Amino acid sequence: MRAVVYKGPFKVAVEQVPDPKIQHPNDVIVHITSSCICGSDLHMYEGRTAAQPGIVFGHENMGIVEEVGPGVATLRKGDRVVMPFNVACGFCKNCERGFTGFCLTVNPGFAGGAYGYVAMGPYTGGQAEYLRVPFADFNALKLPKGTEHEEDFALLADIFPTGYHGTELAQVSPGESVAVFGAGPVGAMAAYSALIRGAAQVYVVDRVPERLQKMKEIGAIPIDFSKGDPVQQIRNMHGGDGVDKGIDAVGYQAVEPGKETEAPATVLDAIVQIVNPTGILGIPGLYVPTDPGGVDPHAKQGRLLIPFGKLFEKGLRLGTGQCNVKRYNRYLRDLIIAGRAKPSFIVSHNTPLNDAPTAYEKFDKRIEGYTKVILKP
Amino acid sequence: MRAVVYKGPFKVAVEQVPDPKIQHPNDVIVHITSSCICGSDLHMYEGRTAAQPGIVFGHENMGIVEEVGPGVATLRKGDRVVMPFNVACGFCKNCERGFTGFCLTVNPGFAGGAYGYVAMGPYTGGQAEYLRVPFADFNALKLPKGTEHEEDFALLADIFPTGYHGTELAQVSPGESVAVFGAGPVGAMAAYSALIRGAAQVYVVDRVPERLQKMKEIGAIPIDFSKGDPVQQIRNMHGGDGVDKGIDAVGYQAVEPGKETEAPATVLDAIVQIVNPTGILGIPGLYVPTDPGGVDPHAKQGRLLIPFGKLFEKGLRLGTGQCNVKRYNRYLRDLIIAGRAKPSFIVSHNTPLNDAPTAYEKFDKRIEGYTKVILKP
Amino acid sequence: MRAVVYKGPFKVAVEQVPDPKIQHPNDVIVHITSSCICGSDLHMYEGRTAAQPGIVFGHENMGIVEEVGPGVATLRKGDRVVMPFNVACGFCKNCERGFTGFCLTVNPGFAGGAYGYVAMGPYTGGQAEYLRVPFADFNALKLPKGTEHEEDFALLADIFPTGYHGTELAQVSPGESVAVFGAGPVGAMAAYSALIRGAAQVYVVDRVPERLQKMKEIGAIPIDFSKGDPVQQIRNMHGGDGVDKGIDAVGYQAVEPGKETEAPATVLDAIVQIVNPTGILGIPGLYVPTDPGGVDPHAKQGRLLIPFGKLFEKGLRLGTGQCNVKRYNRYLRDLIIAGRAKPSFIVSHNTPLNDAPTAYEKFDKRIEGYTKVILKP
Amino acid sequence: MRAVVYKGPFKVAVEQVPDPKIQHPNDVIVHITSSCICGSDLHMYEGRTAAQPGIVFGHENMGIVEEVGPGVATLRKGDRVVMPFNVACGFCKNCERGFTGFCLTVNPGFAGGAYGYVAMGPYTGGQAEYLRVPFADFNALKLPKGTEHEEDFALLADIFPTGYHGTELAQVSPGESVAVFGAGPVGAMAAYSALIRGAAQVYVVDRVPERLQKMKEIGAIPIDFSKGDPVQQIRNMHGGDGVDKGIDAVGYQAVEPGKETEAPATVLDAIVQIVNPTGILGIPGLYVPTDPGGVDPHAKQGRLLIPFGKLFEKGLRLGTGQCNVKRYNRYLRDLIIAGRAKPSFIVSHNTPLNDAPTAYEKFDKRIEGYTKVILKP
Repeated sequence: MRAVVYKGPFKVAVEQVPDPKIQHPNDVIVHITSSCICGSDLHMYEGRTAAQPGIVFGHENMGIVEEVGPGVATLRKGDRVVMPFNVACGFCKNCERGFTGFCLTVNPGFAGGAYGYVAMGPYTGGQAEYLRVPFADFNALKLPKGTEHEEDFALLADIFPTGYHGTELAQVSPGESVAVFGAGPVGAMAAYSALIRGAAQVYVVDRVPERLQKMKEIGAIPIDFSKGDPVQQIRNMHGGDGVDKGIDAVGYQAVEPGKETEAPATVLDAIVQIVNPTGILGIPGLYVPTDPGGVDPHAKQGRLLIPFGKLFEKGLRLGTGQCNVKRYNRYLRDLIIAGRAKPSFIVSHNTPLNDAPTAYEKFDKRIEGYTKVILKP
Repeated sequence: MRAVVYKGPFKVAVEQVPDPKIQHPNDVIVHITSSCICGSDLHMYEGRTAAQPGIVFGHENMGIVEEVGPGVATLRKGDRVVMPFNVACGFCKNCERGFTGFCLTVNPGFAGGAYGYVAMGPYTGGQAEYLRVPFADFNALKLPKGTEHEEDFALLADIFPTGYHGTELAQVSPGESVAVFGAGPVGAMAAYSALIRGAAQVYVVDRVPERLQKMKEIGAIPIDFSKGDPVQQIRNMHGGDGVDKGIDAVGYQAVEPGKETEAPATVLDAIVQIVNPTGILGIPGLYVPTDPGGVDPHAKQGRLLIPFGKLFEKGLRLGTGQCNVKRYNRYLRDLIIAGRAKPSFIVSHNTPLNDAPTAYEKFDKRIEGYTKVILKP
Repeated sequence: MRAVVYKGPFKVAVEQVPDPKIQHPNDVIVHITSSCICGSDLHMYEGRTAAQPGIVFGHENMGIVEEVGPGVATLRKGDRVVMPFNVACGFCKNCERGFTGFCLTVNPGFAGGAYGYVAMGPYTGGQAEYLRVPFADFNALKLPKGTEHEEDFALLADIFPTGYHGTELAQVSPGESVAVFGAGPVGAMAAYSALIRGAAQVYVVDRVPERLQKMKEIGAIPIDFSKGDPVQQIRNMHGGDGVDKGIDAVGYQAVEPGKETEAPATVLDAIVQIVNPTGILGIPGLYVPTDPGGVDPHAKQGRLLIPFGKLFEKGLRLGTGQCNVKRYNRYLRDLIIAGRAKPSFIVSHNTPLNDAPTAYEKFDKRIEGYTKVILKP
Repeated sequence: MRAVVYKGPFKVAVEQVPDPKIQHPNDVIVHITSSCICGSDLHMYEGRTAAQPGIVFGHENMGIVEEVGPGVATLRKGDRVVMPFNVACGFCKNCERGFTGFCLTVNPGFAGGAYGYVAMGPYTGGQAEYLRVPFADFNALKLPKGTEHEEDFALLADIFPTGYHGTELAQVSPGESVAVFGAGPVGAMAAYSALIRGAAQVYVVDRVPERLQKMKEIGAIPIDFSKGDPVQQIRNMHGGDGVDKGIDAVGYQAVEPGKETEAPATVLDAIVQIVNPTGILGIPGLYVPTDPGGVDPHAKQGRLLIPFGKLFEKGLRLGTGQCNVKRYNRYLRDLIIAGRAKPSFIVSHNTPLNDAPTAYEKFDKRIEGYTKVILKP
């Protein structure tokens, strides 16, 4: 089959690779209809990870069940499904409590597995014609037959639940004020989720005009940090007060207002400032324990200077970590089906699989409006 | 001052009564600008309680602070405020945990107090020109100055939080399906709150066409129980399945589909049927331990035949009781201010205080569209 | 193999039945070392269910893995395991949220499955030499090798988690006062669990002196309801006040103080009386939707007269249903291993499988101290 | 009256100061019977804060109500009471949600107030004969009359709830494994609380033999960090695995194993290492936003190098901040009354108020077994 193969920094190719096969009774093979490129794919693409050439990318996958292992109980050939980016077993100590992003079974020696990602286990990615899905009863979410909502459902693999996860970590409740840092796909989905959950005000901080415009369209309040300290801007708009909850949808590649160099703790710093005492920080934005490209020796080990004294004084709580997609995807799917959520407003391009190299290049450079690309095999 | 005084079954009058005075350092006197008539006022009006003539009605009160006791810390003359219908102390074992509807201090021998209501303590009602508010720092919620959102804010005293309470008792979460029984003011607010909280589908059961029409307008799915078993209707519309959560906003004066006589457990019965195993029932609709007008000797003592075996088999949970308004009113106020909630769509009439007798009569008969009346002293 | 087979009301026999076989890749076969007789087995034994002769009893099973299906990932021959009485898939909408007692997969048309129980699916019981365990990675909890804690671990299949479930439904927290109705195995385990969770006072209501004595030994406060109204007794001992939480570990076969005839709602009635406003009721005691032996036509349909008006006035919440054993068994196991829980104080007899008929008879009659019997195949 | 007055670094004196008076209708005056010296008093005593000479120390206060303001509803002269160290209003946005450690009313411009502490508002301390208690209905917890449990109840002002707060922030549940760093008063109370809540294993890290011995006596597992890396020691004892939950009861004055110089993030670092993915960190140990004695310029501003990448990779959550004493003190009191908690095992000395200077000196030097001192006016 054809698949997007990593060839080295800033280089991917669409190549022939072996078709996946049923390896275990609980596997299914899915014929991919949509597979998105994720911002985290760019970490590998840019050579900022330990990824070796040869990896097939793609962890945001949906399609049609093509073949079913003999142990699978609830899936049939022809079922339309979307898979969480996490690969999980469903029965370990973490999965049984809903922490499917930290499965202890699928990636021995580490808590958590994923498709097509360095160090996340032996699971080939889905930017390809076919995908093997292990523990398929657990890892495939059924969708209504047909082609309706294809873009919306594709976002259930990662980006919609991941944004929602930020609001869950921050325990966003009706009537609260929320500050979201970052209006990329995760931040946009976090802001959108905060509104779905009934937040009163959702401030979203970014500097890309198109992103900020989109946030305004969904009912959030855009804050352009290129125009001044975002903390002060939010306070000014919020009657001088801070906010109830904060979400960091940026992660360790943050840049300071007015500068271009990375300042990996700058969003954490701002979020501690803007959230009121007793508040909660939800941090779906990625931080990593080893970062070869870190700005200093501490950052290379994932050690960041955090205003911990201030955080304590305010009595803040915070939650971090990869999204446990399966905890949310069923309910977010039902919102889409009911017509009460339409996350696909962030999708910028649908692209044939064969054009993946160009799509990666443009997405990485954020040119021509490439913000969220769905590959169509 | 003038006030609405209960004279006996089906009779109220606007009469001169003594002005309220500061009785305790923590009191304030509020000049009432809006005071709603509540469906539960009709229980007294109809003579179905132990209420004696002479009671001043009114527990849904808002206005302007007129006089401030020497112990009050945060209120000033001229502040615009809305009061929860509950009177609460703020420091007893129940209040300190947020159960302000079950205060142990303000109504000795009973858990909970209210303004202008039989057996709820010595607190004169607010369908009058002035109101004494005890423990005022705790019991008055400040509002923005001016007259904006007057109708919306008036609903913060009871009906909006009470509807919301139903969704909180049922723990309604984003993406869930919900069945609300009753589209009167409480049911309408419960359905509205379920949508604010991100429910996927909200089915609302009633038989009054205007109410059902309003539910459709806000995005809920109307179910007319005069056209057939509501449980079956919802199942038919929901793919044969039941729903995740159920809210009983009717209470003990329920009537069976197709009949006119009271069947006090009929909604409880339906809600147990329509909610799926593992679901939760939120029951803000009123049930009482003594009901002189009960349909049988058991009902007169508040004993109802409940399908408890089925409830157990399904592993259902349920929550009941008066709303702890203070737990929600601040956040619901902020949704109104932010323009993200506008509950006043249920207000049918603004009426001068002097016209209260007519308003009570028409509201009791549900004629001329009297669904929610605000008295303006 | 030999197994305990139901022959009709008040009759079981140990007979030869076919050995279980691996039927599905995710199955294991377990060589049973301990299988308890449960109070709910007596419902079938007494002919009070639709159970037909031929059923092999036994849903409280532990043993050694004998054979492993090709889809099983984490179990090996020789592993010592205990199985929840629930049979569950691990991936349906209910299982994925931890409601393994309400699995939608294993018993089509019903929410929940179990071994050796009428209407709970095609799963042969474990009062036998061998047991087939479906979805074995999910349904078998590993235990330390050897024979230590055999009795304690055997109780992890049902009775210890079920008692604990009562405290979880009631959300028992440190420092609270709790009333437990029933000091049979479930009630004893509920009281024991309440103490483990840090309750301040645990009142336990029963009338069997030996049971009450045992409750006193573990630190609970025994209340003998044959000596007077238990509600009044608890109030007298509790400074005139009610308690924070209540647990009904009796269920529908309750008898009224001073009488011998069943009064299926008497415990529900008492628990509503004794729990303070804002409290929570945990109801692990069984209630059924159809009871051929019910005391009246309503009871036969599982409809009970509940003091619902009082329940509402107090703002009580309640939770019901079968225990989701898998939610608790891992943690309760770890308490046993750490020496901080020793639930086996309730085990009265270890009996060879061949003596099951006698054990059933004596347990049913509650004679010779038969309170909890473990069959040893 | 006599009171302990701060005179400058390492110097306190017992001097005559004016008697406190009722200043507000909601005040009471308490005749102090016990007032503990807290580890956080030593921060001021050592001159490591902005405290100016003249402050009367003492925030862990209990005694007998002497005089009652006219607005007080539930206290009477002669009532025995213990006060949370927090001063709180009971009605602000934070207090009404139970965050009484972050009251917005009592210390304008800051969230939170306390007695006798720099920057915590104008509330004179209770290491004196009398204490003024504002908002007394809210801030005084009634105790049984008499003198029983005096030492245990005195610990309800701060140290027992603060330790318990650590277990609450970490959401310690029955059967879990917990690592507590620090066996001083807060750490000892955290470990004790974890056991009360039903933890399976509680590892406690310290290097003072007497403290470790005490931890062993209550059922915890002592870990002497002077004998090697505590993270490795715990793993070795815990089957190679980490633990479910971690509590930092040390704070910013931590020292590294084997060294004597402060390393303010060393406990945070260790706790991130030892807690398993999906775990929670409870951090009652104090961190401050400005520390004149900090080891480097960052530490002086409360900025610490945290292994944030690892924390994220593990998906950890954490909670910080001063204890909201009122959330717990009622329930912990009831455990003491019931004989199920006896926290006074950590009290080392009862000392006349006049001997406070010596007690401060010895406690600061941790000599002669001075670990927890109660001053008796």
